Amino acid sequence: MAETSAKAEYVVGVDLGGTKIYSGIFDNSLEYVGTAKVSTKAQRGTDAVIERIARCVQDAVDEADLSLKQLRGIGVGAPGAVDAETGSVIFAPNLGWRDVPLKKELEKHLGVPVFVENDCSMSMLGVYVAELKSKPRHVVGIFVGTGIGGGLVLNGDPYRGANHTGGEIGHMVIDVDGPKCNCGNKGCFEALASRTAIFQQIKTAVKNGQKTLLTEMLGNDLADLRSGDLRKAIRRGDKFVEKVVEEAAEYTGIAVANLVNLLNPEIVVLGGGVIEALADEMMAIVVEMARDCILSGTSKDVQIIASTLGDNAGITGGAVLAKRLTK
Amino acid sequence: MAETSAKAEYVVGVDLGGTKIYSGIFDNSLEYVGTAKVSTKAQRGTDAVIERIARCVQDAVDEADLSLKQLRGIGVGAPGAVDAETGSVIFAPNLGWRDVPLKKELEKHLGVPVFVENDCSMSMLGVYVAELKSKPRHVVGIFVGTGIGGGLVLNGDPYRGANHTGGEIGHMVIDVDGPKCNCGNKGCFEALASRTAIFQQIKTAVKNGQKTLLTEMLGNDLADLRSGDLRKAIRRGDKFVEKVVEEAAEYTGIAVANLVNLLNPEIVVLGGGVIEALADEMMAIVVEMARDCILSGTSKDVQIIASTLGDNAGITGGAVLAKRLTK
Repeated sequence: MAETSAKAEYVVGVDLGGTKIYSGIFDNSLEYVGTAKVSTKAQRGTDAVIERIARCVQDAVDEADLSLKQLRGIGVGAPGAVDAETGSVIFAPNLGWRDVPLKKELEKHLGVPVFVENDCSMSMLGVYVAELKSKPRHVVGIFVGTGIGGGLVLNGDPYRGANHTGGEIGHMVIDVDGPKCNCGNKGCFEALASRTAIFQQIKTAVKNGQKTLLTEMLGNDLADLRSGDLRKAIRRGDKFVEKVVEEAAEYTGIAVANLVNLLNPEIVVLGGGVIEALADEMMAIVVEMARDCILSGTSKDVQIIASTLGDNAGITGGAVLAKRLTK
Repeated sequence: MAETSAKAEYVVGVDLGGTKIYSGIFDNSLEYVGTAKVSTKAQRGTDAVIERIARCVQDAVDEADLSLKQLRGIGVGAPGAVDAETGSVIFAPNLGWRDVPLKKELEKHLGVPVFVENDCSMSMLGVYVAELKSKPRHVVGIFVGTGIGGGLVLNGDPYRGANHTGGEIGHMVIDVDGPKCNCGNKGCFEALASRTAIFQQIKTAVKNGQKTLLTEMLGNDLADLRSGDLRKAIRRGDKFVEKVVEEAAEYTGIAVANLVNLLNPEIVVLGGGVIEALADEMMAIVVEMARDCILSGTSKDVQIIASTLGDNAGITGGAVLAKRLTK
């Protein structure tokens, strides 16, 4: 018993985000046996963040009553452009990173093989393998959180393009006269339907005198606003919040239709914190708007669903990748 | 000499459009040795159009001093959703076609193997093989004519999606409050930058009293307006026409950026009648706008060019397909 449990048979998935680091230990059948979460503290600099990732992995290992020796590999999803070959993060604006040799540094800390991918590609991989059982050949994944990212599976394989920077669904312009996006463009999908966009709209309206249950719940500055608060407010009858979320869902439906018309996938999967918190409020509207906008023809039978993996998509994908690459 | 020339060593490409049918005979090195063009006359019905396709092929064969026996195969690009396996046109709104067994019917007429594909996929194949020498792995093709269609090459292979209806770049919504599109949506790329959209805008403005050299050239109803007339008017200093074309080019640039952010190709190729006629007027604006809107990062080095094949992209692609499938 002691002997078998000491074998390196576990894999780790890490979801490195702009605000938090989330890690999970998975056994051979991709069930997770321990997780851990720490804040990212990007402002402390690259080395500090890398140390925090290492600590987050160690915390999860400890949580699962295991030791580092029992890990076969670690898959890390990073929020930006990644060179998967070298395991370097080329550019991650939310972390302020440029050309960070994440694989090399983390391997120094942990002594376990590390593999790095873009975070949305990683979430897509998790959804594709663990949730969709690798069955469909063409899948579009849309992850709505602080920003909006995408993951593509085309012809059964993850697709990222010529230099691994594809899948930027969030910066698809769908309203040329829309609100300014952080990227400099106007009317990007992300500037219309991300958590940031939704919160911004609510906060601006409140400043302009809009009444909402959210201020009763959280105070006038709405400092601790979370996606779950929107759900609570809507369920308590807040028509203003309902309308803001509805509009975000409509934009999401248009984005889904654009992607279906372009890529003709079997299935579109939506995930990320916003969808996880507001699936009941948003998905019916997303699906209806998308079906309205999808060209008549054979794409009408595309499935449009919310992922059941929720926040675990990223760590699951990391585990899938680590398992694959340490075979 | 007579013996070798009697061998079936030529292939044919056919570009079946809503208004014209264009065919070309190609030798083994993909040089064309004869072409023919007839109007489509879609209103006469499916059988009449199929006979006209057959006649167009025979005309081109005659033009090249060949006989049908010298043809190895025929590749036809049809404007709509195609089942490439059976060679049937599933749905082609511009022709009023649903479930037309084009391969079977044309083979009856001509006694030569026929292969059918979507017209934009076919143009993309022509550009990819004959112009780009099959070198880049990821290419986006945008064909701007009466409508706007797209062709994708991903991982070195033509990409059409789950049921061959992908590539519908023209129906990407880029301005949710934009003009109504034929498909029912608002602000599709096609409703903003196709020949139809440009002409519509000009005709409406003229009705509302806008002065333009075009009415001097063609009369007040602008009945025979062609893309080339826009070029002439711009070169003679017509600021109104220049502005309309400029705006179409700006929308095209935004669409290019959306596709680059999403698919991260090495190269974006623009073709079709509008680009062929107005490349000098439009391409610099398309490229500038696209580069403005492409996310900072490694996609900045994507090439954005006008195809040199012009109107021959479709027939060249048909010939490439026929050559491949009759090896």
